[in-house]
Amino acid sequence: MKMKDIGEFEFIDKIRNGCLIRTDGVVQAIGDDAAAFQLDAGKLTLVTTDLLVERVHFLRDATTGFNLGYKALAVNLSDIAAMGGMAREAFISIAVPVDCELAFLEDLYRGMRHLASQYDVNLLGGDTTGSKTDLVINVGIVGSVSAHAMLTRQAARPGDRIFTTGYLGDSRAGLHLILNGITISTGDYEALFEAHILPHPYLAEGQFLSAQTGVHAAIDVSDGLVSDLGHILSASHVGARLWCARTPVSPQLQRFCTQFGFDSVDYALTGGEDYTLVVTMAADHAEAARQSYERRFGKPLFEIGEITDTGRLELVDPTGRVNPAVAKGWNHFKKG
Amino acid sequence: MKMKDIGEFEFIDKIRNGCLIRTDGVVQAIGDDAAAFQLDAGKLTLVTTDLLVERVHFLRDATTGFNLGYKALAVNLSDIAAMGGMAREAFISIAVPVDCELAFLEDLYRGMRHLASQYDVNLLGGDTTGSKTDLVINVGIVGSVSAHAMLTRQAARPGDRIFTTGYLGDSRAGLHLILNGITISTGDYEALFEAHILPHPYLAEGQFLSAQTGVHAAIDVSDGLVSDLGHILSASHVGARLWCARTPVSPQLQRFCTQFGFDSVDYALTGGEDYTLVVTMAADHAEAARQSYERRFGKPLFEIGEITDTGRLELVDPTGRVNPAVAKGWNHFKKG
Repeated sequence: MKMKDIGEFEFIDKIRNGCLIRTDGVVQAIGDDAAAFQLDAGKLTLVTTDLLVERVHFLRDATTGFNLGYKALAVNLSDIAAMGGMAREAFISIAVPVDCELAFLEDLYRGMRHLASQYDVNLLGGDTTGSKTDLVINVGIVGSVSAHAMLTRQAARPGDRIFTTGYLGDSRAGLHLILNGITISTGDYEALFEAHILPHPYLAEGQFLSAQTGVHAAIDVSDGLVSDLGHILSASHVGARLWCARTPVSPQLQRFCTQFGFDSVDYALTGGEDYTLVVTMAADHAEAARQSYERRFGKPLFEIGEITDTGRLELVDPTGRVNPAVAKGWNHFKKG
Repeated sequence: MKMKDIGEFEFIDKIRNGCLIRTDGVVQAIGDDAAAFQLDAGKLTLVTTDLLVERVHFLRDATTGFNLGYKALAVNLSDIAAMGGMAREAFISIAVPVDCELAFLEDLYRGMRHLASQYDVNLLGGDTTGSKTDLVINVGIVGSVSAHAMLTRQAARPGDRIFTTGYLGDSRAGLHLILNGITISTGDYEALFEAHILPHPYLAEGQFLSAQTGVHAAIDVSDGLVSDLGHILSASHVGARLWCARTPVSPQLQRFCTQFGFDSVDYALTGGEDYTLVVTMAADHAEAARQSYERRFGKPLFEIGEITDTGRLELVDPTGRVNPAVAKGWNHFKKG
């Protein structure tokens, strides 16, 4: 069954079931000119939004609807995580070509609802419309954070230690496997596929870190560590040194790089879409925060470098030599 | 100059100037993972979002960037108006084909900023990304409204009078002129072009009406009066009678219909994109509310019908005969 067989309003009726994950504070959900809800009084409201376009961000034939919906929501939740916030309400705009299978779209909303329910996030509205060629999805998230706890890109200070909440480079390796038709049964690379297809939004980790003393700036790794840390540097007017030998590389990425002849440090530094959080912390509080993080979550918070006053990003190679970093990350328009 | 010549981050730097229309309550504007702001405590937060896709909602060659940006924002402000709310922050996601002229995009943001500044709305964030073929724009608006004043679709009651804040059908006539290459110099049809190209968001009117005693349900006319009133009827489980002879038709639409042989009542009942508000009011308060509206705004609030308990929409023709209405409005997918 295609979209042209049922029409916009029947489609909305089909997908709205199960979208209200949590009722508290919600006064008007899907079905009016706007959604209406009451956020926690005295907190800041956070909003982030991301637009995904077929043939740029995904290939409809190469993904399931579930995975596409899951990831579209996950990358937005990650932005709220990078502010130290709690995600509350999601708004999904979708432009659908007439030949798009209804089953694919229903699967897409299943993927969104699956992830939304894990994080107590409502799908509270959006827009459904047509498209000539490409499927287009815009996800907007409204969240909240205490004003004093909010983590921005502009709060890094020289001397801060830099941490990441997870392995880097796995997602790019997963993408390589997918683009080259290497299936999940080929090798023991499940974690690499999963990092790319079903990324983990670090919401609980971001909220925990934002409440720790001495935690300053944060960003999530979407374009690649070097590129995203670069946003912290320019917003905070600081520099940084990354210790290449300490960028966390998963055992599967290590094996992948050995098998296919890639440089795992290059993957860790420039591979995008890991959606780990990169945070900077005052040196005198960093060790305590790291220990309490590891007690709370039972997994490591990886220290990967330090903020400097040079205004430049430098890479310390395994021999201790310091090299200037060349920004290499994803830019949607520029070639090379 | 094209998008591929400057890249995403330079583009954001170019368009962010002038986007902060109002600073109060804003803690983090464009340039971090999410925007952060403090809404009025004790009010409901409203969110609406609309997705516009090239070749479905607009033709890039047939519009200026300014007009496209203006209208993309206006139709979303209209949704906040239809809730009786105040618009506060706008979030613009845009997916740009590499061949898109930078001047067009800058003009688009000029159109948005122009309208935003009229309504004290910030452009506070969004997403910039690529597209293979079509320019895609998603606009999300965050607003607020007092809980007791909010106007929904589900609050109409039998006996309510039905009003519209402006003429109906002008926008469809404007579209007809544009699609048939009839230029503004051809006849004295400026109001028809303007209704289609630069629609007025009835924010002040919606806020005023939401504060009046006895005002119940509201919606904005995007798909056409019959279709949009139909949403009120199904959400409120009521019927309605529209008096065809009293649907407000502008002098220009009347002349247009005479010249081109169209039925002006049909235009008024089914023409979309007028973005006037349709509101229902308790019969015993309607006259007082209408009079105070006309004193406040110096323009008429047109009474066009009444809510019934039949569950059906009926049209009373100029001879007094009652006919069932056949829903005719815009549906993005269904044919015929």
